[in-house]
Amino acid sequence: MLALVKEKRAPGAVLKQVEDPKIRPNHVLAKVRATSICGTDVHIYSWNKWAATKAKPPKIMGHEFAAEVGEVGENVTHIKKGDMISGETHIYCNTCYQCMIGNFHLCEKMKLRGVDTDGCFSEYVLISEKTAWKNDMSIPAIVASAQEPLGNAVHSVFAGEVTAQSILVLGCGPIGLCAIALCKSAGAEKVIAVDISEYRLDLAAKMGADILIDGSKEDMRKEVSAILPGGVDVILEMSGSGKALNDALKVVRPGGRVTLLGLPSDKVTIDLSNDVILKGLVLQGIFGRKIFATWELASRLLRDGSINLGKIITHKLKISDYENAFELMVEGKCGKIVMTF
Amino acid sequence: MLALVKEKRAPGAVLKQVEDPKIRPNHVLAKVRATSICGTDVHIYSWNKWAATKAKPPKIMGHEFAAEVGEVGENVTHIKKGDMISGETHIYCNTCYQCMIGNFHLCEKMKLRGVDTDGCFSEYVLISEKTAWKNDMSIPAIVASAQEPLGNAVHSVFAGEVTAQSILVLGCGPIGLCAIALCKSAGAEKVIAVDISEYRLDLAAKMGADILIDGSKEDMRKEVSAILPGGVDVILEMSGSGKALNDALKVVRPGGRVTLLGLPSDKVTIDLSNDVILKGLVLQGIFGRKIFATWELASRLLRDGSINLGKIITHKLKISDYENAFELMVEGKCGKIVMTF
Amino acid sequence: MLALVKEKRAPGAVLKQVEDPKIRPNHVLAKVRATSICGTDVHIYSWNKWAATKAKPPKIMGHEFAAEVGEVGENVTHIKKGDMISGETHIYCNTCYQCMIGNFHLCEKMKLRGVDTDGCFSEYVLISEKTAWKNDMSIPAIVASAQEPLGNAVHSVFAGEVTAQSILVLGCGPIGLCAIALCKSAGAEKVIAVDISEYRLDLAAKMGADILIDGSKEDMRKEVSAILPGGVDVILEMSGSGKALNDALKVVRPGGRVTLLGLPSDKVTIDLSNDVILKGLVLQGIFGRKIFATWELASRLLRDGSINLGKIITHKLKISDYENAFELMVEGKCGKIVMTF
Amino acid sequence: MLALVKEKRAPGAVLKQVEDPKIRPNHVLAKVRATSICGTDVHIYSWNKWAATKAKPPKIMGHEFAAEVGEVGENVTHIKKGDMISGETHIYCNTCYQCMIGNFHLCEKMKLRGVDTDGCFSEYVLISEKTAWKNDMSIPAIVASAQEPLGNAVHSVFAGEVTAQSILVLGCGPIGLCAIALCKSAGAEKVIAVDISEYRLDLAAKMGADILIDGSKEDMRKEVSAILPGGVDVILEMSGSGKALNDALKVVRPGGRVTLLGLPSDKVTIDLSNDVILKGLVLQGIFGRKIFATWELASRLLRDGSINLGKIITHKLKISDYENAFELMVEGKCGKIVMTF
Repeated sequence: MLALVKEKRAPGAVLKQVEDPKIRPNHVLAKVRATSICGTDVHIYSWNKWAATKAKPPKIMGHEFAAEVGEVGENVTHIKKGDMISGETHIYCNTCYQCMIGNFHLCEKMKLRGVDTDGCFSEYVLISEKTAWKNDMSIPAIVASAQEPLGNAVHSVFAGEVTAQSILVLGCGPIGLCAIALCKSAGAEKVIAVDISEYRLDLAAKMGADILIDGSKEDMRKEVSAILPGGVDVILEMSGSGKALNDALKVVRPGGRVTLLGLPSDKVTIDLSNDVILKGLVLQGIFGRKIFATWELASRLLRDGSINLGKIITHKLKISDYENAFELMVEGKCGKIVMTF
Repeated sequence: MLALVKEKRAPGAVLKQVEDPKIRPNHVLAKVRATSICGTDVHIYSWNKWAATKAKPPKIMGHEFAAEVGEVGENVTHIKKGDMISGETHIYCNTCYQCMIGNFHLCEKMKLRGVDTDGCFSEYVLISEKTAWKNDMSIPAIVASAQEPLGNAVHSVFAGEVTAQSILVLGCGPIGLCAIALCKSAGAEKVIAVDISEYRLDLAAKMGADILIDGSKEDMRKEVSAILPGGVDVILEMSGSGKALNDALKVVRPGGRVTLLGLPSDKVTIDLSNDVILKGLVLQGIFGRKIFATWELASRLLRDGSINLGKIITHKLKISDYENAFELMVEGKCGKIVMTF
Repeated sequence: MLALVKEKRAPGAVLKQVEDPKIRPNHVLAKVRATSICGTDVHIYSWNKWAATKAKPPKIMGHEFAAEVGEVGENVTHIKKGDMISGETHIYCNTCYQCMIGNFHLCEKMKLRGVDTDGCFSEYVLISEKTAWKNDMSIPAIVASAQEPLGNAVHSVFAGEVTAQSILVLGCGPIGLCAIALCKSAGAEKVIAVDISEYRLDLAAKMGADILIDGSKEDMRKEVSAILPGGVDVILEMSGSGKALNDALKVVRPGGRVTLLGLPSDKVTIDLSNDVILKGLVLQGIFGRKIFATWELASRLLRDGSINLGKIITHKLKISDYENAFELMVEGKCGKIVMTF
Repeated sequence: MLALVKEKRAPGAVLKQVEDPKIRPNHVLAKVRATSICGTDVHIYSWNKWAATKAKPPKIMGHEFAAEVGEVGENVTHIKKGDMISGETHIYCNTCYQCMIGNFHLCEKMKLRGVDTDGCFSEYVLISEKTAWKNDMSIPAIVASAQEPLGNAVHSVFAGEVTAQSILVLGCGPIGLCAIALCKSAGAEKVIAVDISEYRLDLAAKMGADILIDGSKEDMRKEVSAILPGGVDVILEMSGSGKALNDALKVVRPGGRVTLLGLPSDKVTIDLSNDVILKGLVLQGIFGRKIFATWELASRLLRDGSINLGKIITHKLKISDYENAFELMVEGKCGKIVMTF
């Protein structure tokens, strides 16, 4: 089969023929109908510091996909031939303490699909049943392949109150964009979106943001304080910017919620006394998706039209066009890019 | 009456005769039976940077006390002559948004007793009924005067699960010491106490800590990892040390709780990505006491013997001996110091 | 002033001249701009069993109102002349255990306005500051006077998850109608409204209910099971019907939420084993409104247009027309009836 | 192998030779070291109404056990030969909605070990890895076999606050007895135990109950009201008695917790208005154990000595003595009965 392979510990990747995966017990073999590019894939493609520590070439890249099940292994109980599946990226062990208490997303022995194992930028994928998610057949493959950032957004947004809250979303990448739409559909009083890219702020407006702030031109603290003198109720940090977080800590109201999903590349210096402790704030680190509670919730929201993922899918390309795709991702001139074979 | 007054914007304080306070509507006038020294008082006495910004001399110092009500003002409904009261330090407005939603401890217009108003290092105090707490008559005045740090500890400890949890207490001042006893009485699996003072670690042992770590001599991370290879469940940060917090973030288990009460004097640099977000941690800033839910809970714990505050009261002095008292506080050679007239 | 007075322990009430109330410390005196009729008023007017036990004639009736403050008593701190206020019906003592832990709505010494004290069906009302709620000036008096059922609905609806949930609302009186609108604005997946009155089901449709079931003609269990074979996520019981509750317990999914607000007039027989325990359900009794957290939330929802209370106000009458008003209430041919002077 | 088999749809059971189970993929085969009798087993043995509806003879009876793994099937990942295991009774499907959202204990397709499948009253058991629990090797087999009621108690007790709470335990069977010890070890202020058997009240005292009430001789409501005039904070209903529950609803304080685990054999009539809604109570139906969060917690509590299960194991018998064992269970003259081969 054709697959996009990270072959060497250096920038780039190679589209090439590899051997087809073979069915195994507790696994299903599925034909990939659509696959999306995540920021993690860009790290591996560009071979940055994070990738150099974590990735283990040679591996087939990718982890976001929708695929049609063709073959079902022994002992598989609920996935059937013809099902359209996606896969949880975080391959959990099901035996460690975190898995035992239901925190599968914090598994102590977690493997990442497309990083520690072969991924999904290929014509076929072999998926363990425990990490497979059965999509509702009404959801098109292109949309289903892009539901991972929706899952991250669902996990973040619903980690606390949303209805009637004022919410500041820092960073309008795919996860931030999903978060904006989720907040609006859950009855947030006001959603303020912040980014430094006009392209992304345009998408934020399309997802329903009430107010847009261009952090490269405007003083976010001043703007937010003018709109909400009493402070904003909830911060959703999805940019990884330490500067943005610190500014946000100044404008969040005492007793407010600060949800951290964006990964700063460096350490962040915080005025813990004045900006966290004396304000009685809660800072929540959010990683991945609850397996599979988040998927269930995301699926409902997709099904009932609360969120239109189509709006964030800005590019549909053939996998042969992968170099172009990664270039677009690096430039940030895109929402979600979906590739097909 | 006699009162310890902060007269000038400089180190020190003066014990002198001042006018007696006069009864007012919605207030009670009470005779102070015992009063304790808090770290805040030391800041004001020593006139450090914090004090220079916040304190407003001349003011009678102090906010921890037990006093017997002698006179009751108009419209007072539940405090009676003869009641033994203490007072909440945080004088809330009862009208701002935070007060309206029940977060009286995060009042937007909060005043601090002994900082913004006259305090309790005096023979009589005038207390608004809304900030007065009626002590159980079975609790001796000396103990009742020292229940504020217990309140802070109750607020911190019970902000999450305790029973069957492993808990790391950073800092063994009065609040940390109370926290240790509370954790043990609530069935914590293991309480590890950390401090850099032998004197305080001795007190920690008396309060029931299972394991003592002297941070000045031992490598806390190494010790904790040896005892709990899977990580500790809960961090109670009561030292204000950024170094201790960072070390603790390395040894707390994924999905664990980090409760922040100690106020770092400087900003703190944190590896948010690796130590908070990827671990799915929750960081809770804790300020003051829930008014009066925390007092109710603390009172029950005092009454049923779950905590013996007597063990942390190391010195009982006359107020005339105040210079000695503050010297002991600065040196850290004490638990709680109670003064009487 | 003119006032509608319950004079005798018998059906009816008398509109008559009474003495004006006089300002007192900690109170405000306000001119009533609009006042609404609640089911409780109907009980007292009709003098049913409940009324005979609880009411204490002679008393001015009524507790729902919007009034303009004309005079402010001593020691009042945040209400000012000219403010438009409503009042919390539940006059809490602020000193009992429940009040101390912040459960003012469960006060052990609670008095009911218009039942234990004079009410608001009068030209002027005297209100203690602690029970006064300052309305946003943008909310018309007629709407503000009808916000109490909204408060009950807010308290009930947001006692658990709403977004993406399927919700069954039993009973479409004013509180049920508000609940329907709240659920929709908070992103409920599907809201099913049940009543036995066509008039009220029409109002339910106007408030946004997705599906209407006429319990007098259709088999609710069968209908709901057909729509949601896996069961409904949340039951909001606002009818007080034991039959409806029992049917609902059969169609709620395991682990679901059952929120009880409607007051059955008789005891209810429940299959606790099969319908509650083996299903792992939670049954929440909801009483009143959180003081004032619920009011804050309701106020936000009114302000941001999440709920249009105007739609449930079906009649605006002069107080002189009170006999007509109570007749309409008894017949159930109304939503909310607002009266003015 | 030897096994106690329910052969017919009639009272009794037969100890006989049956075929040994054979290893299968995803399963382990283990030698039973100890097995305990549960109330469910008594229902099946006595063949009561419940059993007649649910049980499917012929089946090997029993579901509580500790067994040593002898053989490990294909694809088993974390259980190894030599491990001492117990098994979760509730065999969940891992694919339904409840399983997907982490409510494995509420699985929609649940099977019960020893009811729907062969159980553990036999020399060997075949257990799917997903329902196997690896015991700490420090826990004796006899104790490990009796940890299921501990699990029920853990699930019930920690479904809300315990520390500093006053708690009324209704019913002192094995689960109630475990609950008493758990409450005490978690720092409950006062634990009041109620039963109608002197034998069981003696055991309750041994588990640490502060106050014993013999419901057959004393008026529970009167006794509790005398001790706690403000009401009790938490009710743990473990008797299945509707009368006890109704009495308890009268003495629980407003806003308190009522946790229901005991299964009434008949419907229960409740004054929902006065005893639940107007009091703002929460009633929680508790079923089974959270898989495996409850097991983890129970295991910690066993390991750290918070609970001494040994105290409730009153009889150790040979399985050949099973008729005697069931007779003791029916008479209620026992705590937990453990059988060995």
